[in-house]
Amino acid sequence: MTENYGWEIISDSLEASELIVDETLFHTANGYLGVRGNFEEGYPNAFDTIRGTYINGFYDISEVKHGEKLNGFIESKQKIINITDVQGIELFVDGDRFSLFEGEVLDYKRTLDMRSGVVSRQIVWKSPKGHMLEITICRMASFVSTDLFVIDYTVKSLNYEGEIVLVSTQIGEVSNYFNPNDPRVAGEFEQHLTVREVRREDHIDLIHSETNASKLRMTSAVKHSVSAQCQTESTSDNRSLTTKIKFQIKVGVSERLIKYCVFTDSIRYSDCSQSALCKMHEVTRMPIEKVYELQKDYMDAFWKHADVTVEGDEKLQQGIRFSIFQLLQSAGKDKYSNIAAKGLSGEGYEGHYFWDTEIYMLPFFLLTNPALAENLLSYRYEKLEAARENARILGHQKGALYPWRTISGSECSAYFPSGSAQYHINADIAYMFVQHYLVTKNTDFVVSKSAEVLFETARLWMDTGHYVGESFRIDAVTGPDEYTCVVNNNYYTNAMAKYNLKWAVKFYELVKEHGGSAFFTNSIGLDEKEVRDWQEAYQKMYLPYDEKLDINPQDDTFFSKAVWDFENTPKENYPLLLHYHPLYIYRYQVCKQADTVLAHFLLEDEQKLSTIQNSFEYYEKITTHDSSLSTCIFSIMAARLGNIRKAYDYFIHTTRLDLDNTHHNTKDGIHTANMGGTYMGMVYGFAGLRIKETGMYFNPVIPEEWKSYTFKISYEGNLMQVKICKEKCVFTLLSGTGCDIYVWHEKYHLEDELVKELK
Amino acid sequence: MTENYGWEIISDSLEASELIVDETLFHTANGYLGVRGNFEEGYPNAFDTIRGTYINGFYDISEVKHGEKLNGFIESKQKIINITDVQGIELFVDGDRFSLFEGEVLDYKRTLDMRSGVVSRQIVWKSPKGHMLEITICRMASFVSTDLFVIDYTVKSLNYEGEIVLVSTQIGEVSNYFNPNDPRVAGEFEQHLTVREVRREDHIDLIHSETNASKLRMTSAVKHSVSAQCQTESTSDNRSLTTKIKFQIKVGVSERLIKYCVFTDSIRYSDCSQSALCKMHEVTRMPIEKVYELQKDYMDAFWKHADVTVEGDEKLQQGIRFSIFQLLQSAGKDKYSNIAAKGLSGEGYEGHYFWDTEIYMLPFFLLTNPALAENLLSYRYEKLEAARENARILGHQKGALYPWRTISGSECSAYFPSGSAQYHINADIAYMFVQHYLVTKNTDFVVSKSAEVLFETARLWMDTGHYVGESFRIDAVTGPDEYTCVVNNNYYTNAMAKYNLKWAVKFYELVKEHGGSAFFTNSIGLDEKEVRDWQEAYQKMYLPYDEKLDINPQDDTFFSKAVWDFENTPKENYPLLLHYHPLYIYRYQVCKQADTVLAHFLLEDEQKLSTIQNSFEYYEKITTHDSSLSTCIFSIMAARLGNIRKAYDYFIHTTRLDLDNTHHNTKDGIHTANMGGTYMGMVYGFAGLRIKETGMYFNPVIPEEWKSYTFKISYEGNLMQVKICKEKCVFTLLSGTGCDIYVWHEKYHLEDELVKELK
Repeated sequence: MTENYGWEIISDSLEASELIVDETLFHTANGYLGVRGNFEEGYPNAFDTIRGTYINGFYDISEVKHGEKLNGFIESKQKIINITDVQGIELFVDGDRFSLFEGEVLDYKRTLDMRSGVVSRQIVWKSPKGHMLEITICRMASFVSTDLFVIDYTVKSLNYEGEIVLVSTQIGEVSNYFNPNDPRVAGEFEQHLTVREVRREDHIDLIHSETNASKLRMTSAVKHSVSAQCQTESTSDNRSLTTKIKFQIKVGVSERLIKYCVFTDSIRYSDCSQSALCKMHEVTRMPIEKVYELQKDYMDAFWKHADVTVEGDEKLQQGIRFSIFQLLQSAGKDKYSNIAAKGLSGEGYEGHYFWDTEIYMLPFFLLTNPALAENLLSYRYEKLEAARENARILGHQKGALYPWRTISGSECSAYFPSGSAQYHINADIAYMFVQHYLVTKNTDFVVSKSAEVLFETARLWMDTGHYVGESFRIDAVTGPDEYTCVVNNNYYTNAMAKYNLKWAVKFYELVKEHGGSAFFTNSIGLDEKEVRDWQEAYQKMYLPYDEKLDINPQDDTFFSKAVWDFENTPKENYPLLLHYHPLYIYRYQVCKQADTVLAHFLLEDEQKLSTIQNSFEYYEKITTHDSSLSTCIFSIMAARLGNIRKAYDYFIHTTRLDLDNTHHNTKDGIHTANMGGTYMGMVYGFAGLRIKETGMYFNPVIPEEWKSYTFKISYEGNLMQVKICKEKCVFTLLSGTGCDIYVWHEKYHLEDELVKELK
Repeated sequence: MTENYGWEIISDSLEASELIVDETLFHTANGYLGVRGNFEEGYPNAFDTIRGTYINGFYDISEVKHGEKLNGFIESKQKIINITDVQGIELFVDGDRFSLFEGEVLDYKRTLDMRSGVVSRQIVWKSPKGHMLEITICRMASFVSTDLFVIDYTVKSLNYEGEIVLVSTQIGEVSNYFNPNDPRVAGEFEQHLTVREVRREDHIDLIHSETNASKLRMTSAVKHSVSAQCQTESTSDNRSLTTKIKFQIKVGVSERLIKYCVFTDSIRYSDCSQSALCKMHEVTRMPIEKVYELQKDYMDAFWKHADVTVEGDEKLQQGIRFSIFQLLQSAGKDKYSNIAAKGLSGEGYEGHYFWDTEIYMLPFFLLTNPALAENLLSYRYEKLEAARENARILGHQKGALYPWRTISGSECSAYFPSGSAQYHINADIAYMFVQHYLVTKNTDFVVSKSAEVLFETARLWMDTGHYVGESFRIDAVTGPDEYTCVVNNNYYTNAMAKYNLKWAVKFYELVKEHGGSAFFTNSIGLDEKEVRDWQEAYQKMYLPYDEKLDINPQDDTFFSKAVWDFENTPKENYPLLLHYHPLYIYRYQVCKQADTVLAHFLLEDEQKLSTIQNSFEYYEKITTHDSSLSTCIFSIMAARLGNIRKAYDYFIHTTRLDLDNTHHNTKDGIHTANMGGTYMGMVYGFAGLRIKETGMYFNPVIPEEWKSYTFKISYEGNLMQVKICKEKCVFTLLSGTGCDIYVWHEKYHLEDELVKELK
């Protein structure tokens, strides 16, 4: 194993079709700020590019038109917007403009180093006039000062002596990507950001802008630092700033421009220009080496807890690390933001947050970085009032309904059958609040945040469901599988709602123990009677079960439909949603993604193993995996059911989805849920982790391709390492006072090290 | 009974809120052309008005935006457009401009005379300067020359001697009504028609215009004829023409301006300007009295077959005649047009044709005017190719699917769950083709048109449904009740599809008898095997039935849902669709309109009477009648079940829906389906008519409020009069060779007169 084993992502492609994908893969983000991996000097005009910079949670509002607008349909939606472009740096040597598409490229590679959190381009270039330069450009979005993005531009002359000109730009006139030929991205040009002020102060260039509809403000600040004796000339117009830097270079000598870029916004700061200036002073006060060092320290600390290693497959190791690194890059680190479906790497899904966060990504943070997990959950707590308003729009007099997709808290889904109708998001969020409690045993957080979320979501289930005889049923909702919409008694939804209601009752008891129940009586009018109603409802929750098949039907009428004609569906007709009218799809037994199978993963104790096994086999045959949220769950459940070969195959597909662009849309951004799914595939899949009320369970297996795999997790204040080898699994307590764990359903107390033979 | 008993509609209101409704009620149409009852001289600016003229089937295309566009969603739709405004005539007396809102109105009334087919305004007006005029304005859309609309303007001086100036305009710059505050009509101003030419030729003023997107063309031509010695001055710009007519008037003398307006369009004529000129010459060649006389002859002939009389209730009589008259005004009389949901009286529902035509309106035409009925059916036959294309969009490889709403044949519904998903429209259309055959026994029409429609619709059911064991089921469609969408085995749909399939087989046998089956083998690839498949499917068609309740459930899961909380729904929350999110509505047992009850009306032999009775009682409790298509069906079925009191109450509500503006949207146009429902309430409801394969059935009853009621119907080439009195019913053969009829299930041969005591 070399030192670089799986730590780097490298590309040397200059193909237009690959460059636009690399813009995503090599984007630089820190959870607050994201800059796509565009070339500072640009591409030829004919190349398609999505040049973008984004702030997490910073949005404009777009009007939503409906062909036919029914009551409660959304009238507007939030949308992440492309902000001021600070990426521009052009280099001129002896009148020739540097471009990788002119002159001669003698060497080129781009590297993402996931240990240091830095992306670099290393180029050896011969200009049309024959001057040879070595150009190294490093880019970093600081995890320590999240407002900071740095471009570190070094030029070394190999045979040239004379003047070098660098032209650095900051452009306030930007717009989101649009493509009239692709219905999945915006089809129309829309200007969202208007420059309000362009100014220069203390050698800092500032552009202050405002969004057109949401009236949010942001400032970008740029400061240049040059190693050489240079002449600097600054110009500006009312929408941009340009700095021209001229210096003399000698053969064998390197000169360096550091472009510090700071971004602030009015969501976080009352005066964002002033704050940007302060931040800039703060970050430029220390040498750039210190900035890199802090980044490295941060990354070291991160990887110490978060790394998952696999012996025996470097590509896979790389895919796993890439997934983990992207989760870190994508995750909002304050209560104003969360994790967008594409992180901060692109504009796909308009920067919206979905259930992906809770069900696919939070497990990673919860087990490796509980503070960040709390932060993500706090975002949901902060949006509770908006969720109450959303519930009213959907007709409910009581309770809260989290929106299917949102940035600032209100619903942004314009097609409700596979959007707002996915009420399960309420239970998904509640589920993770419960998991957080089970992992941390943090009762303060329960009393201050989780309880209210569980109470309000429980109320919504009561207002949505009803009794038929002795069973509590939930009609007209959509489960995770978007190829079947608005059904009665979706198994996933009912099972998750049951958990939601059950834990609302448990949290009520916990709050009561801590003397907090009076608070909820006053604040949300909660009384014991209501809690007893929740209890009755979860006890009587109806979970569809087909006795003859020993399977859980996806919903009340799923099994009475015809099975999709897979045999006569040509390969090019996938994903189905791009080739068939939704009504046609709804008519058949065909799943876009795991639904009942996902419920069996999250709540395995609701059914006996044979039912889970039979259901897996049944649904596997009719699932297209047209969603990137699917294969990871099938991998986990295949492992659970002992089919390691199948688990491995699904897992391989999961791990490199973006690196290999298997869904053909990585250009629009990474698939963050799939990244979380990769992590879960290791920890919940192969290692068989489950967090239950009764404790932490492992059922580890290992694919034959691997020698071993290792990861670390936090549990009840302990940090433990888990290493699974061919013949044994080793649990090592790294810090903390120890805890109980279950391995293959046997309970052990982990104090130091526990070694168990692999079954 | 006076001569006018129920023949006239009179209004003397000058209230803004009533005038906009009167524009609809007093509109003038002939199935080709419709002119709203706007005042020639206009209202004060503050009054809301929908000033409009429409040609049936003449449309522009609008882009349709979707918040989230899924595969197969429509990208554009047709829309009826407001065309050249020829209504303008201003009158000036001694410098004062005539207006009913200035000076003094000494007498005013507006009358629709349904016998003559003419609307008139009679006014006695005192100008601000004290000059008294009697003004009479008659308007007529000719049923004989359907291109012709006439305004016949007579001024009589009561105390004035001097100059009168009439200013007549023709304005090409028009747009559809829009109101940004009403989501049910267009919210944005859109220009659809562009003037291409303004010219004057042979004293005829022409404006030739073109629609912006559909590129259809139309011409309006105006010619003035004045009784007095007058001075005429014509002016024009590039979008309008104005004719100023000055003449001297004496006390006691009447002078008269006749404004002939002819409309032609490029759907019907290759050169519409030339055709307009020819038409104008044709109609102005005869004296205006002749034009009135022809209209009166037409109306006499119409009423002779179509009239339905009721002794004992003038308001009701008026309502019935109004309904029948509006059906005539609304029905397209060529293969290019059909009957819009608002006829030609307004822009509601964008001039689209729905299933309303077949299920609610065609029965009237079929029984009173078979030629017109054939015409309406021929329209559907003409659109078969478009229906095939629509089926492909919805994913079907075979068969035709008629669009839910359309003008030119392609789908215009932008919300498919209560639009395109209403596959029952296929069976509705097929049903009326069958009814046409049963009434006329016209096998030529079957061979040339009906058969192909039935074959292609039958194919669609085969491609939509599937077998579960021995039952043929139809999943994921929407029935007539739009408060429950996309369900499995909607009773109405399955029952109607069964009829569709059954008659496709019967028509195949009929075609075969007439030697036409080879034609279909060649033209649409039909073979015997396919026909046998239809047979098997209808024989095995699954019709949901709840044994315990002895009711037909509306669909597979309808009864498992909670019943809507009617008790706690405030009155102002109706119609529910304007106050609740559709998803909330879908969750409950609540019906917008008759669904299963409608199936029991159309196909009563599918179930035993107890099931029909129980179903009626069940659904009645949960039906809001938020649709104007509902009460008439409940009236018919109440009569069928012997509850005459209830039938009468529903009928009263039906009959005067527009005259009393009970749905508060008559300003947007008349409810044509409800008009048809009124007719059906009499003939199918009280008289209990059913047309079956075995013959024509009557089960007459009479409400206690009436002395008698009478109507005439055509059947198998015979014309018969049916008169129901308190104690007896009398069937009189007026023409034809006689036919069999069933009265209370007893068969009789009607040759001359048949008198039966009323049960």
